[in-house]
Amino acid sequence: MPHTHTSYLELIKTVREIGMLKSVAGVLNWDEHTQLPPKGTEHRATQVSLLAKIIHEKFSSAHVGHLITEMEASDLLHDPQSDAAVNVRELRRDYDRAVRVPSSLVQEISRVAVLAQSAWAEARRKSSYGDFQPFLARILDLKREEAECVGYRTCPYDALLDEYEPGETTANLNVVFASLRDKLVALIGRIGASGRKTPLDILERYYPREAQEKFARMAAMKIGFDFQAGRLDTTVHPFCSDLGPGDTRLTTRYDENYFGDAFFGVMHEAGHGLYDQGLKPEYFGTPLGEAISLGIHESQSRTWENLVGRSGVFWKHFFPLVKDAFPAALAGVSEEQWVFAANDIRPSFIRVEADEATYNLHILLRFELEQALLHEDLQAADLPGAWNEKMKQYLGIVPLDDAHGCLQDIHWSMGAIGYFPTYTLGNLYAAQFFEQAQADLGDLDRQIAAGNFAPLLAWLRKNIHSHGRRYSAGQLVKKITGKELSSEPLLKHLGKKAREWYGV
Amino acid sequence: MPHTHTSYLELIKTVREIGMLKSVAGVLNWDEHTQLPPKGTEHRATQVSLLAKIIHEKFSSAHVGHLITEMEASDLLHDPQSDAAVNVRELRRDYDRAVRVPSSLVQEISRVAVLAQSAWAEARRKSSYGDFQPFLARILDLKREEAECVGYRTCPYDALLDEYEPGETTANLNVVFASLRDKLVALIGRIGASGRKTPLDILERYYPREAQEKFARMAAMKIGFDFQAGRLDTTVHPFCSDLGPGDTRLTTRYDENYFGDAFFGVMHEAGHGLYDQGLKPEYFGTPLGEAISLGIHESQSRTWENLVGRSGVFWKHFFPLVKDAFPAALAGVSEEQWVFAANDIRPSFIRVEADEATYNLHILLRFELEQALLHEDLQAADLPGAWNEKMKQYLGIVPLDDAHGCLQDIHWSMGAIGYFPTYTLGNLYAAQFFEQAQADLGDLDRQIAAGNFAPLLAWLRKNIHSHGRRYSAGQLVKKITGKELSSEPLLKHLGKKAREWYGV
Repeated sequence: MPHTHTSYLELIKTVREIGMLKSVAGVLNWDEHTQLPPKGTEHRATQVSLLAKIIHEKFSSAHVGHLITEMEASDLLHDPQSDAAVNVRELRRDYDRAVRVPSSLVQEISRVAVLAQSAWAEARRKSSYGDFQPFLARILDLKREEAECVGYRTCPYDALLDEYEPGETTANLNVVFASLRDKLVALIGRIGASGRKTPLDILERYYPREAQEKFARMAAMKIGFDFQAGRLDTTVHPFCSDLGPGDTRLTTRYDENYFGDAFFGVMHEAGHGLYDQGLKPEYFGTPLGEAISLGIHESQSRTWENLVGRSGVFWKHFFPLVKDAFPAALAGVSEEQWVFAANDIRPSFIRVEADEATYNLHILLRFELEQALLHEDLQAADLPGAWNEKMKQYLGIVPLDDAHGCLQDIHWSMGAIGYFPTYTLGNLYAAQFFEQAQADLGDLDRQIAAGNFAPLLAWLRKNIHSHGRRYSAGQLVKKITGKELSSEPLLKHLGKKAREWYGV
Repeated sequence: MPHTHTSYLELIKTVREIGMLKSVAGVLNWDEHTQLPPKGTEHRATQVSLLAKIIHEKFSSAHVGHLITEMEASDLLHDPQSDAAVNVRELRRDYDRAVRVPSSLVQEISRVAVLAQSAWAEARRKSSYGDFQPFLARILDLKREEAECVGYRTCPYDALLDEYEPGETTANLNVVFASLRDKLVALIGRIGASGRKTPLDILERYYPREAQEKFARMAAMKIGFDFQAGRLDTTVHPFCSDLGPGDTRLTTRYDENYFGDAFFGVMHEAGHGLYDQGLKPEYFGTPLGEAISLGIHESQSRTWENLVGRSGVFWKHFFPLVKDAFPAALAGVSEEQWVFAANDIRPSFIRVEADEATYNLHILLRFELEQALLHEDLQAADLPGAWNEKMKQYLGIVPLDDAHGCLQDIHWSMGAIGYFPTYTLGNLYAAQFFEQAQADLGDLDRQIAAGNFAPLLAWLRKNIHSHGRRYSAGQLVKKITGKELSSEPLLKHLGKKAREWYGV
């Protein structure tokens, strides 16, 4: 027992050091996207890949493997809910993934991904899918190989999905997403047929950059983001970096002719940031101090961006403030017009610009296509046709070119297959959690309308953030809401919006 | 021979990786002083110390030791000026330093230094030397122990000096500095007696922060700092970070009621930055890609700050520009008044605020006192008295309290003993190099007056920057100027200023 205990301490010490090095890599990444001078790019790439090598070698070492195996046979794990048992269970998971894929394959995927990303950027610029197709085909081959190395129960897609959403299965997603798809297509059809149009031009007036930053920062602070333990900076493609306890950094971009980009972007990233700031610092570097999955992370960003940030009750408190911040743009605009503008729903071509409702159909389309591609039910050559067909079927519109169609996203060129569904999972989790929070907190709407976000944040901290990876996403949903993951809460939420604003 | 060659490649690969990790630590350090949110401090300290441990272990490993020893016996080093010979010579130097001091002692010095810094900060705040004295005594004991581990020819101070100024000796500095001291004391006395006072108030008018930044950035660009491979940011204690090829970062601070702080600060840091940007990227991570010494580094900053930036010819080009940038502050100010204001010489208490001439006496005083302390010719308890006596002797003034006397600098509390002389070495090197550059470039004054800094920069690149650690500082001085290090060029330069502005 004392010997086992020593092994556990040694294991934790080792993974903490690895966590520390990952957080160093995080600083390099944040710096690269916000500070790095152009000529420093090559050196930064070398720093990053050296650090990745050191991290991989340290974690996939025989030493770590032995410690995990030793722990698995030890008394310390008798209670499967003990900290030690949870950490060992999750480390086993990570370790197996790390050692099952040979480093030659990892390197080949990285190498091809670099080439594919540059080919993709060029192909998108020229809207010439043919130039990207061979790279996509090669990526798919390599990812199939990776899936075989990792192993799976039912289909290769499981192996890839599991990297981003541990424990989730393709079969389950197919069922849940199918139940979402048809009702969402119908709802969006009814909204379109209603003939009502949001006063979108309100958001497209002149919003000075400094005032936008000040307003977004104030909102992030009000919902609970701790700027003594974080920052807000500018970048091209916004993200949130968790650089370790006390250091969570949001980024955004400003468009002076569109209010929505920066504001809802900051609400979104601050949602991620609140999750990171809610992880327990004493667990840093161990699974208990880490986020569960991309989907759960996304649920936190979507909660604050959409469920809170676009709600009428939110603007009860914030509308007078936004009017003060932008008196010229908002002269004569009513609260009702403003909130309607923030809740526009209409089909569009580009995922990242899509609204809260249609967004999910963009994801479902990608989820279905990447499954078909990986499982060779669809050839890379036939992607554009399949894409456009599904766009027509789900959103009723067909892009004029592939730049606005199957070439719009970077993910596949990076080898990120199995990543897209986590976006819609985020929306589903968010809606299901939020329904429960409303039930638990009673007067949540009134709290939000009063600008009091502490009860909701405390609820998220207690039920989600503080657990780290103690539960899988599916377990957490069940534990919190008493039900399996379902599309109903999201459909109910969107249905309510449709009634409220479009009368359908 | 092929085997030896393989060992050399292995050695270079290893030290390059170490250099890469050091540059990662550099990013953490820069970030800490410009970006880090307050609550991230503790985590950053852990990241930094883990990285320091990894770097130390990698470099002081038996493997590196064997490779160096193997190379020393190899044919590859027959030509002592070959790249391989230079790298191995310098790596031996670094390796011996790294392994001779036991890590228990290194850790104890770090530990005590943390306590001593905080005791020093508090003692300075209260101007209560007694509170700091036991920490200083302990630091001195530990540094004596370190000197014994490192080894030395003549005196323990040699061992410490050698860390910052490789190859330099206490005996040589005592001779060179003595020849500077007496003449400088006399010169400053004559300046004081002249009764002429610079129109200092010109620099103390209102200089808006943004205009200061724009102007300083423009000047840094004009002298050749490449902002595609660097940045300029704000911090509390300005520094320059070399984060690797293509990434050199300057920092400064702005006082809206004093022009000199930011402007000459940026010229100073840009001088450091130009050295870093002039190191050959292909040598990164090896001694041939590193700066020679703190003194040589300082010579580059002093060249641009003082020899160029405070010269009359520099302002021939820049005075119209500065007048445009600050029309209100400079209304009615003549070029002559402006340059005189930038060349104030008068005794003061605080080193970091001292002018180009008196600064060196602040250094000489510290150099003499730290030698005496280390060699136990002076007891820590007697420091304040000795300090004040020398202030009186060299600068004719005595501080009213120790906060403005022996407690003003952080260096000793950090264990940095042997560091101070590199500041004045920088001034000496700078003046001696500059005299040679004037001889070599012929019309340097005219080039500077025309805002053409390319010939001077090219001269510095060719003669100094591009060599890395191929030559020691002393060798480089001899190679470039044909003479040993001497105080004459600096005294000549200061003498000329004294004649020009004070008529003495």
